[in-house]
This record gives sequence, structure tokens and C-alpha cells, in this order.
Amino acid sequence: MNLKFKHKEVRVFAPASVANVSCGFDVMGFAMGTPGDEIVVRRSDKNTVTIKSITGDEGVLPHDARKNTASVAVQKFLEHVGFESGVEIEVHKQMPLGSGLGSSAASSAGAVLAINRLLGEPFSRKELLPFAAEGERVACGTAHYDNVGPSLLGGFVFIRSTEPLDIFGLPFPESLHGVVVHPHIEIKTEDTRKILRNDIQLGQAVKQWGNVGGLVAGLINKDIDLISRSMEDVVIEPIRSVLIPGYDSVKESALAEGAIGAGIAGSGPSIFALTPGEESARRVCRAMKSRLDDIGLPSDEYISQINTKGAQVIDVKD
Amino acid sequence: MNLKFKHKEVRVFAPASVANVSCGFDVMGFAMGTPGDEIVVRRSDKNTVTIKSITGDEGVLPHDARKNTASVAVQKFLEHVGFESGVEIEVHKQMPLGSGLGSSAASSAGAVLAINRLLGEPFSRKELLPFAAEGERVACGTAHYDNVGPSLLGGFVFIRSTEPLDIFGLPFPESLHGVVVHPHIEIKTEDTRKILRNDIQLGQAVKQWGNVGGLVAGLINKDIDLISRSMEDVVIEPIRSVLIPGYDSVKESALAEGAIGAGIAGSGPSIFALTPGEESARRVCRAMKSRLDDIGLPSDEYISQINTKGAQVIDVKD
Repeated sequence: MNLKFKHKEVRVFAPASVANVSCGFDVMGFAMGTPGDEIVVRRSDKNTVTIKSITGDEGVLPHDARKNTASVAVQKFLEHVGFESGVEIEVHKQMPLGSGLGSSAASSAGAVLAINRLLGEPFSRKELLPFAAEGERVACGTAHYDNVGPSLLGGFVFIRSTEPLDIFGLPFPESLHGVVVHPHIEIKTEDTRKILRNDIQLGQAVKQWGNVGGLVAGLINKDIDLISRSMEDVVIEPIRSVLIPGYDSVKESALAEGAIGAGIAGSGPSIFALTPGEESARRVCRAMKSRLDDIGLPSDEYISQINTKGAQVIDVKD
Repeated sequence: MNLKFKHKEVRVFAPASVANVSCGFDVMGFAMGTPGDEIVVRRSDKNTVTIKSITGDEGVLPHDARKNTASVAVQKFLEHVGFESGVEIEVHKQMPLGSGLGSSAASSAGAVLAINRLLGEPFSRKELLPFAAEGERVACGTAHYDNVGPSLLGGFVFIRSTEPLDIFGLPFPESLHGVVVHPHIEIKTEDTRKILRNDIQLGQAVKQWGNVGGLVAGLINKDIDLISRSMEDVVIEPIRSVLIPGYDSVKESALAEGAIGAGIAGSGPSIFALTPGEESARRVCRAMKSRLDDIGLPSDEYISQINTKGAQVIDVKD
């Protein structure tokens, strides 16, 4: 491709996302309105990709461009198109790291949307996904799409297959709100993968794919009751939830206050709920947080409508 | 319930059905237009449920009312409503037994639709499902819904859960045709269950529920390409297909001739294909049959549009 810089710099907001959505382990995710990261990608005089600055990460994220999820994603993009000039990247983390909210995916998604715009949008959002997933690979060891998908595309995203990539959005009831409560404990994604069993019972698998089919049909048909009945994870949640103090109680409180369903956000430790509207979201959020308070666990909370747009360019400098 | 006979006899046609639909093991099925069974349920002077006659079964099916799927289903219905008068039942098999086409389910579905009409339709079709499933239990040992569901309700049916029962129809592209080729070999449903492993790999399960979600979305959105990509069974087909001579070759020929997808009908030995229309259905059917001819295996074939209505009352005598 014969590309050149169309702008001096592009700033993007890329939202947090909730992977799995209970039964849909590794195949589903949805985007939150907030929180999210801001990523700036700027043309550079050098022919390298560099991390110019990182804020909001408490000094945790790598400044080495070969290790940072945003720069790796951009690097993959530039290699693919054979573009030899360089860029510098600013990463402004505005959400907790290691929370289960797809923090690295947001940076990765934001970075590829920004570099795409900087070079005149040679690719569609869907075409950008593999580059963002390569950024994810640096952070998590695998190129998953259940966070970069929603963060880039917005809404509810279904990943039928990763090889070859087959990913599409699902309609959903417009009033749906996401609630996330993030207890202040650290769980490494690596560890949450390790404790999963390699084998599962066929009977459990059948229940799970029954629920996945139910959830997909419920979302498309905007059938809140069916969504609710289908948001049951008999495979992963029983194992991973033991790593999250108070999990059962928090989930129970969400359902008692009118949540459509609740589960572990990605690999945790955040706990998410879906609610039919904003008022129930606030009620559900209070109840969830108060259960964590009861066991002395401080937490952050996030409430928003489902983000229908995905990552957005918020500023362009020419 | 205070019920009485509204008619003297009711004759019902109940269609064959294809369970599983590739990836949807135990959670999906669709109804064929033909073949199907005819069931007659007639008021009797005795207060028992009896099998009056069975045709088309080559003497194989039990005349003992406690063992025949049609009479057991009717008995369960009558016990449930506390109706003490008796009926006699005629079973006219018009499809092969043990073929994977839901033969026992058709008799069971037809019988409950007939008794329901005979008593003035106290129940909806959905409410009749558990009685039909009890008939299935006599034939197969378990109360499955992936054949009685489509046979009673018509169309594509999804079973999110059996306990509690959560079953619903899925829209689908109207032009869709089903092709079934039934090789003349005998496989016992029991044996096809026994060879399945109790455990499956998590990675395979994720692929399967990715495909189940894809198939549900594809059907609802009438997206033929997505249906096609999703009709892949990585869990059951690799094991069961070894029981069916020439399976891989028959399936390959169906896809080569333009089938949207193909797989084992229920637990086999019949092999089904879905096609986008009637012409492709005929072409696909010929190709499949010719592959069986090549290895000297005689077969029956069935081609029809998807049955949208399910079992139908075809005659009522007062």
C-alpha cells in the first residue's frame, strides 16, 4: 500500500469492555460507555514506533515499544502496510489495569484506530481487529478478540471463530445498561487461565451451548427474559469465582435488585451486571458495592449504557 | 381438568425431524415436510389406552401400550389431566425406523396432538411437549426434545434447557430445503450415545458454542453464509461418523454440489444437508446417493422444504 500521513496527530477514546458475558467464554463481549483509555498517535521524524508517555498507569506499563500493547499493535499495522516512517504514542490510562475490563485491549484498539486515521483510513474497523489482537497477545499471551472486538466495534460482539476470524455484532435492547464493580484485589489473567480444566463434561458443555444460543437469540430478539435465563455459566464461573472474595453474595445482590444477569467481567476480579435501564443500574450497583463493603473490600464502580460506537476519534491535529 | 370427548376420532400427520443440525448437539432440530407418520386416536368404550393397529413397521414396534411411544405419550397426557375414559390408537409408520429421522418422536408428537384435539384442545403445542417427550423416553431412555420439538412445533427449534424446559422456534430463510439420505444400515441410538466421550476439551467446546451462536444468529438474520460457516461439529461428528460407511465422501459431495451444510441426522445413520432451494436440493441429493451407490450401500432419500407448521390434524370424525 502506498500510504502517507494525512494528519499530524490523532487522539482516540477506546472504551472498556466486558468479555464472556457469563456463558459466552471466549466468544462474546460488550463495550461499556465509560471508562476507557485515550491514545494519541503522532507522526514522528524518526522511522521508529516509540512510546512518548504513559499516564494513569502508576508506572506499571512498559515504555519499551516492543512490549507495550499499543505500540506493538501499531507496529504490526505499519509492518503489514509496509509503511516506513515512524510515530510516537501517548497512552493515557483512564481505567484500572488487571481489572477484567479489557484495559490492554482498549489501548490496543485505540492505537490501531488512531494510526488508521493518521494514514487516511485504509482499513475498516473489522480489518483493524487482527492488529489490535496482536497488541493483546503481548499483554496476555494470546490474540483474543473478546475485548478488542467490542472496544473497536462497540455493542455486543460475537466471535464465532478466531482462525479464520469470524466476528460480528449483535443487536441488543437499547435501554440495556452495564454495571461493573471492581474490587481492589489483583488476579493475573495468566493464573485465571491456569486454574481452568482442560476437559469439561459433555453434559456441562451442552448446557453452556444451550445458553450461548439462548443469549444470542435473546439479544437479537431483544427478549430480556430470554437474555436473563441464558446468562448462566456452568463451566468457567464455578472455577474462577473462588478467586473473588464475596463473589456469590455480590452476584446474588445484583439479581435481587433486578439485574438481568451478572457474572465475572472477563477473567475478573471485576463483577458485572446487565440491567434493563439506568435506575435499576444504580440500584444494582449500590447493592453490589455494599456487599463488598461488608467484607471490607474497597471497590470502584462503573455504570453506563452499552457503548454502541466503539472507539472514537476525539481530536485530529493537522 | 374437567374434560370430555369432543370428537370420535382424530387423525394427525407428524413430520420427521433432524436433530442436532451439526453443531447443535442436544439443543437444535428442524422439521422436514415429508416423510412423517399418521396417528389416529379414537375414543373407546373401555377405560384403557390400547394400540389398535400398527402399519408400516414390519412388525417391529410394540403393541403393548406400556411400551409403545404413542400410547405412553397419550397415557401421560391422560394421567396429567385426570381423564379416566380410554382411547385406542392406530400408528401408521410412513418413515424408516432407527434412521435418525426422529421416527419415535413423530409418533409421540402425533399422538399427543391427536388426543389434545380429541379432548377440545386444553393445551397449547408447547404445553404438549413434555407428554411427547415422555413417549420418547420409552423409545430412547431419555426425554429428549430435539426431535419432538420440531415434530410438534415445526421449523427450527432451539432447546436452551430441558430442566426447566426452555424451548423456542427460530426464524430461518424461507427457501431452505432439507435433504436426507438414509443408508440401509442399522445403528442403535443407545450405541451412538455410548461411544461419545463423557469429557471434551475446553477448546473444542468453545469452538462448538461459537458455532452454535453463529448458527442461531445466521438463522434469525437469514444469513446463508453465516449458517454455512457455523454448520461445523467438532465434538460429536468426528466420533459418530465412523459408524456410517462412506460418511466423509457423502458429506463432501453435498458441499461440493452447493449444500449450505451437511451432517449426521440425529444419531444417524441418515445424513442430512441443508440447501438454499429446491434445485440445489435435488442436485445435492443425487450426489449424496451416488456416493453411497459407489460403495454398494442402498439408500432412501427425502427432499422437502423445512416444515413450518409441525404436526397437523388431517381428519376429524364426530
